Amino acid sequence: MKIGIIGVGCSKFGVRDTTIQELAFEAVKEALDDANITQDDVNISVVGSVGTRNYELMPAVPVNEYCGFSGKGPIRVESACATGSSAVYTAYASIASGVAEVAIAIGVEKMTEVETPVSLAVGGRAGNYLWEFHQYGTTFPAYYAMHASSHMAKYGTTEEQMALVAVKAHRNAVKNPKAHLQKEIDVETVLNSRVIAYPLKLFDCSPISDGASAVILASESKVKELGADAVWIEGIGYSSDTSNMTRRESFVGLKASVEASRMAYRMAKIDNPVNQLDIATVHDCFTIAEIIAYEDLGFCRKGEGGRFIEDGESDFGGKIPVNTFGGLKAKGHPLAATGTAMVYEIVKQLREEAGKLQAEIKNYAGLTHNIGGTGHFAWVFVLRR
Amino acid sequence: MKIGIIGVGCSKFGVRDTTIQELAFEAVKEALDDANITQDDVNISVVGSVGTRNYELMPAVPVNEYCGFSGKGPIRVESACATGSSAVYTAYASIASGVAEVAIAIGVEKMTEVETPVSLAVGGRAGNYLWEFHQYGTTFPAYYAMHASSHMAKYGTTEEQMALVAVKAHRNAVKNPKAHLQKEIDVETVLNSRVIAYPLKLFDCSPISDGASAVILASESKVKELGADAVWIEGIGYSSDTSNMTRRESFVGLKASVEASRMAYRMAKIDNPVNQLDIATVHDCFTIAEIIAYEDLGFCRKGEGGRFIEDGESDFGGKIPVNTFGGLKAKGHPLAATGTAMVYEIVKQLREEAGKLQAEIKNYAGLTHNIGGTGHFAWVFVLRR
Repeated sequence: MKIGIIGVGCSKFGVRDTTIQELAFEAVKEALDDANITQDDVNISVVGSVGTRNYELMPAVPVNEYCGFSGKGPIRVESACATGSSAVYTAYASIASGVAEVAIAIGVEKMTEVETPVSLAVGGRAGNYLWEFHQYGTTFPAYYAMHASSHMAKYGTTEEQMALVAVKAHRNAVKNPKAHLQKEIDVETVLNSRVIAYPLKLFDCSPISDGASAVILASESKVKELGADAVWIEGIGYSSDTSNMTRRESFVGLKASVEASRMAYRMAKIDNPVNQLDIATVHDCFTIAEIIAYEDLGFCRKGEGGRFIEDGESDFGGKIPVNTFGGLKAKGHPLAATGTAMVYEIVKQLREEAGKLQAEIKNYAGLTHNIGGTGHFAWVFVLRR
Repeated sequence: MKIGIIGVGCSKFGVRDTTIQELAFEAVKEALDDANITQDDVNISVVGSVGTRNYELMPAVPVNEYCGFSGKGPIRVESACATGSSAVYTAYASIASGVAEVAIAIGVEKMTEVETPVSLAVGGRAGNYLWEFHQYGTTFPAYYAMHASSHMAKYGTTEEQMALVAVKAHRNAVKNPKAHLQKEIDVETVLNSRVIAYPLKLFDCSPISDGASAVILASESKVKELGADAVWIEGIGYSSDTSNMTRRESFVGLKASVEASRMAYRMAKIDNPVNQLDIATVHDCFTIAEIIAYEDLGFCRKGEGGRFIEDGESDFGGKIPVNTFGGLKAKGHPLAATGTAMVYEIVKQLREEAGKLQAEIKNYAGLTHNIGGTGHFAWVFVLRR
């Protein structure tokens, strides 16, 4: 059973003075127009939203009503920052199971309705509540700081190498009209910014953004009927890990990323990702996360992620351009909207519609890597046009 | 593609002094034992939890960790009070799509960690927040009171008929060791209890309960390999409706119930539900909801639901025994655990393992009907052994 992506949409990311349903519609409208269909053609709508930061605690109903999917929206999904990918997966499985022919996955998040400390606190509760969050106040900058420290200690990764991830992200985001942070920065900007959780500084962290994105999927027969130029989902991989960081074997990688990518590569028959994929989006909620992702996804060997960015291998013209759209770091990271936006970016690249950010496409294959928490959830998709 | 249910489990419902993960494990352990498998045999775990009333705002990670599904739990689903059915559906679709061979759907809710007014307020936010909840303070007893008033005005349904739903529920719950409220009541008890939202009185309302339940599903080939006595999912129907009640055409029925049942009946080839089904669980969060469900599901004609209960047609020996386990009304309604518990009850009935509450089984077919909000979400499943 082949499932194709026939339409994608993405709102402008940033501080958005809209309701969550209006924000969702920006992405849904673009996706419907892109697929050249209407709401009537959609059989099921899956709404992804973490939903803990906005006044709509159960956002699927108002989002579906406003977007014209009343009658078709029985499910909201949540997997922390990997929520958008869970929505895409549930839409995929709905078609593959024969329940639907056309499905839409909507990822939407309003984060700026609460103050930053509240947002961090709510985020921290996605980890282990009773012990790590409640006793130690561990929030996500602190979690990723532990990973950064471990990686520096074990492999000699430097703060400068991490800063390069931010510099690349900001450089790309300037050319992406949908990006939240549209300002170039240099290594010094990052190194001199204030420490959030050592060794992570302000510019090592993704911003708090509002945003929405949407992906429309269809069965193979429906793709043919519509004559659509589909991007096919060839590989799906998932994993999850303990909520207690104390039970993890190591902090230099995310086991869930490794497992999810292996599962997706097996399904998509990928044995050499850097040679077989043209492009990738990885979950760079913090700069260290992108470096670790290079390794966990098999773009380079364990411990060589710092060198990979330093050598330009993840930039245009490198072995595999990563986060050409500006990444979570600079385009923004509106939680649930991130996974669906990653699919949006890869689809645009594989269709060679990425404008000033277009990478070279030879294999017509790309990857999305979306993490919830610090590897509490992981999704990897392999897409091929 | 046939998908079978090979194991079910359900915790005791009530005020439970446990964490959400311990509560979930009660159900998971019973389901694993029932299926005669271990966590190693499960490929994906879908956790359903509304999650707004307990300290774990994102409960899938701790639940999966505690229950032994780390690595296998990438998704939490939420559809208000229909969340459990969304979990079963997502598990079903995961198998039907070929991604998994064995999947577990876990529904779990801790509701008693907050005070009742907070619980009602959070619940009210599942409807339309900005207009109906924020301006008018509409919570769910008020929503269902509007349905009850409309049904009384249009069809002459009486408070006594509604009370009979509660009397039947309590009578059955006394024989169900997992029920929250284990006390027989009579019509006078209901009529003389204090008004919550006229015409609904205290005993017209389901209680606020903690609880968990779990359903293990497997592909047809896995069912054969295990030699399991499976109950098959033959029909799946879903719908959803507007968050604004002001946009509904009528309050005497739930359009989403009608649409979901038609979809499920079509898939399962049911054209005369009362003759073809042996047993049903319906979403009786308030007594009026059960009466409306008889009609929306086609057990009787529109407007005749009051007479249906009065004539004993939904009791043992009637046309179709409904909520033999005590219903949400008396077994309890721990939100996300309700949909999975409905499947638990029907599986037990179809296997003729329901003990003192066993109904007569001739067609080996039963139905679950699970609503979120007042028809904001709807799921109907047809099961056959």
